[in-house]
Amino acid sequence: MTGEIISIGDELLIGQVVNTNASFMANRLNAAGVEVKNVVTVGDDAAAIRDAFGRAFHRADVICVTGGLGPTHDDITKAVASEFFESRLVRNKTALAGLKEYLKSRNLELTPSREGQAFVPEGCTVIPNRRGTAPGMLLERGGKYFIIMPGVPVEMKGMMDDFVVPFISSRNQGQVILHRTLLTTGLPESDLADRIGDVKEFLPKDGATTLAFLPSALGVRLRISVRGKDLESAKSEVARVESILKERGGDYMYGDEEGTMEEIVGHLLKERNLTISVAESCTGGLIAHRITNVPGSSGWFERGVVTYSNESKTALLGVPREVIEAHGAVSRETARAMARGIRAAAGTSIGISTTGIAGPTGATPMKPVGLVWIGYADEKAAEAYEYRFGGERHIVKERSAQAALDLVRRKLLGLPILRRP
Amino acid sequence: MTGEIISIGDELLIGQVVNTNASFMANRLNAAGVEVKNVVTVGDDAAAIRDAFGRAFHRADVICVTGGLGPTHDDITKAVASEFFESRLVRNKTALAGLKEYLKSRNLELTPSREGQAFVPEGCTVIPNRRGTAPGMLLERGGKYFIIMPGVPVEMKGMMDDFVVPFISSRNQGQVILHRTLLTTGLPESDLADRIGDVKEFLPKDGATTLAFLPSALGVRLRISVRGKDLESAKSEVARVESILKERGGDYMYGDEEGTMEEIVGHLLKERNLTISVAESCTGGLIAHRITNVPGSSGWFERGVVTYSNESKTALLGVPREVIEAHGAVSRETARAMARGIRAAAGTSIGISTTGIAGPTGATPMKPVGLVWIGYADEKAAEAYEYRFGGERHIVKERSAQAALDLVRRKLLGLPILRRP
Repeated sequence: MTGEIISIGDELLIGQVVNTNASFMANRLNAAGVEVKNVVTVGDDAAAIRDAFGRAFHRADVICVTGGLGPTHDDITKAVASEFFESRLVRNKTALAGLKEYLKSRNLELTPSREGQAFVPEGCTVIPNRRGTAPGMLLERGGKYFIIMPGVPVEMKGMMDDFVVPFISSRNQGQVILHRTLLTTGLPESDLADRIGDVKEFLPKDGATTLAFLPSALGVRLRISVRGKDLESAKSEVARVESILKERGGDYMYGDEEGTMEEIVGHLLKERNLTISVAESCTGGLIAHRITNVPGSSGWFERGVVTYSNESKTALLGVPREVIEAHGAVSRETARAMARGIRAAAGTSIGISTTGIAGPTGATPMKPVGLVWIGYADEKAAEAYEYRFGGERHIVKERSAQAALDLVRRKLLGLPILRRP
Repeated sequence: MTGEIISIGDELLIGQVVNTNASFMANRLNAAGVEVKNVVTVGDDAAAIRDAFGRAFHRADVICVTGGLGPTHDDITKAVASEFFESRLVRNKTALAGLKEYLKSRNLELTPSREGQAFVPEGCTVIPNRRGTAPGMLLERGGKYFIIMPGVPVEMKGMMDDFVVPFISSRNQGQVILHRTLLTTGLPESDLADRIGDVKEFLPKDGATTLAFLPSALGVRLRISVRGKDLESAKSEVARVESILKERGGDYMYGDEEGTMEEIVGHLLKERNLTISVAESCTGGLIAHRITNVPGSSGWFERGVVTYSNESKTALLGVPREVIEAHGAVSRETARAMARGIRAAAGTSIGISTTGIAGPTGATPMKPVGLVWIGYADEKAAEAYEYRFGGERHIVKERSAQAALDLVRRKLLGLPILRRP
């Protein structure tokens, strides 16, 4: 089955609201074995809605529509649907009962404008709304399913999970779509592509399995998608491609969509009964922020310091004034001393540090924006590594924090350390 | 002029990625006087892309396309555009020069797969990409503008602001859409609406001016939108509504879209020649991260510490062990001692602190998840304020950091301090 999503609302066309509904619906339709081919957004405009309905009905099997079901003058989705399907709006008993029940639970009255919510196109199936006043509607025509839901995210999500996904799954047997995403960091997209090699060599010719490269500031994600006739064979195809990618991606591959880098590092530390502390200059607290986003991180994260001034590097971390004077605050020597200093002060197993030039100011001819030193100290030694990152201030911060966490992961797993990625 | 946005990428159709690019482009096109009528998302599929190009070209004047410009096998946007416009791909000198410059700055080599990025449809205008390897492309046909950009948000955003908006604005005289967003914090949406009062009283009846309430974890934004025939009258209408909102919003209104809370606080500190330091427990580095996102913050931010353990609160901030034992780490007394301690240790004009229960664990019957104490110390005194925030761990962190920065703003401006917002 193929799917199409139609989002209705002026707010989506002026950039006021990000369309998070569409990605949620796409995710759920995929889980029900529906391949979404198009997502279309139009305003609260009858002609535009009619046009979108017509095109979707022509090319997709399952059409999910959200928005424009409210009680105010600019909500016209239901009227357009009534006209499009040549079904007049009638008062529906199920819808009315559901509406009354919802209003009662909220201590609200059934005003005439609210009662209008119980009118739906004749012959449609009402999808209950437990979280609001507008019912959902399912219209079946020629083996196609046309589903209309409110645009309020919590109401739409409830209808998708309670009704739409089970309903569509039951009518869509023997068709499965599985996705799996693997996370890499430290390698630009084109270099990763070179390592993975020609995908035609290991992807079947029928196009049922695809591989996508998704770059971001934190690294490149690899997404495997498998369309299959049954769950078991689809799962084994995912596993087959995954093992090829893992082998070729090597130690650049650090996880899957189930875990962030900070969760993976936290898990490794906990497993080994180790603790960590962080001394940040150019990342300015971002590493500590990411670490403390992990529930339970207080078990392995002792403290962090953001030493923006040279004085604080000396006072809190014991970095000798002479080291900063001789080599500069952005140097191997300072990064190393910072990592050693925070480890000693905090009494943790590991200490890490960052010092660099995030920009836009602060660069010198020898030390350009994007130059970052990351230090690592454990019970054996302290060392620092040089990196050069592109991008603006916040991107340099993001990349530096990711590289610092990846450095910990590599040290803990005994993997080679990346320099100048 | 009417506009259309085409987002390309399988990741958008399986619900893996939320399409934030589309709302950004819609916002900027609106600012350039372009009324966006449709947003269309298709996968990395030649037939679907061709189909979307054809329809957009037929119905819109300005078409913005993102995605599918990377160097890997699944990136086919450029090939489809070349075919659609019957312009073969040729090596472009401007694109090649830009590519080389970018690679040089990153210390990367010009591999054959990267060199492919310098090929663009013959006769197109190259839009420089300062943040990545794929150039943007502008094709003009029959008075319509077809703009193709990478899907990486930071690259697309740079091209929109540096090139597309100024270019389109210059070709779109006589039609203006202005938006202006005012930022508030510390007041729930419904209370803010009560303060603002009935909008029909001050918005014109023709609907040319609209006002939207946009809630988020950082506060409620108020967006004024004005459609007009000329820039001057549109600007004065924006100013008229803005002055009404500012008067009614009072000290809950802290800025506009030009400045974040941390920028405003930094500006106030700089203006008064003051410095600040931060001691964070429950915010875990987020306040320092936000402060250090401001370019030049090293001029007024001396240091931050993330004291997750009780030991670090005593060692780094001099919080007496007895205070923590008697009142707990999450208490007025500890927050106050932390603020006083970081101020003294850092030698700054102001010290702020946070200690609270971000969840999901750590709550007690008397201290629920969301309870946060924020401390403030200056040369006169040290005090702490109690807050209760709803939401999950990262929302509690976001709200606490915003409230702490707002506390500094209020103290510096002599405004009343909010408690339990």
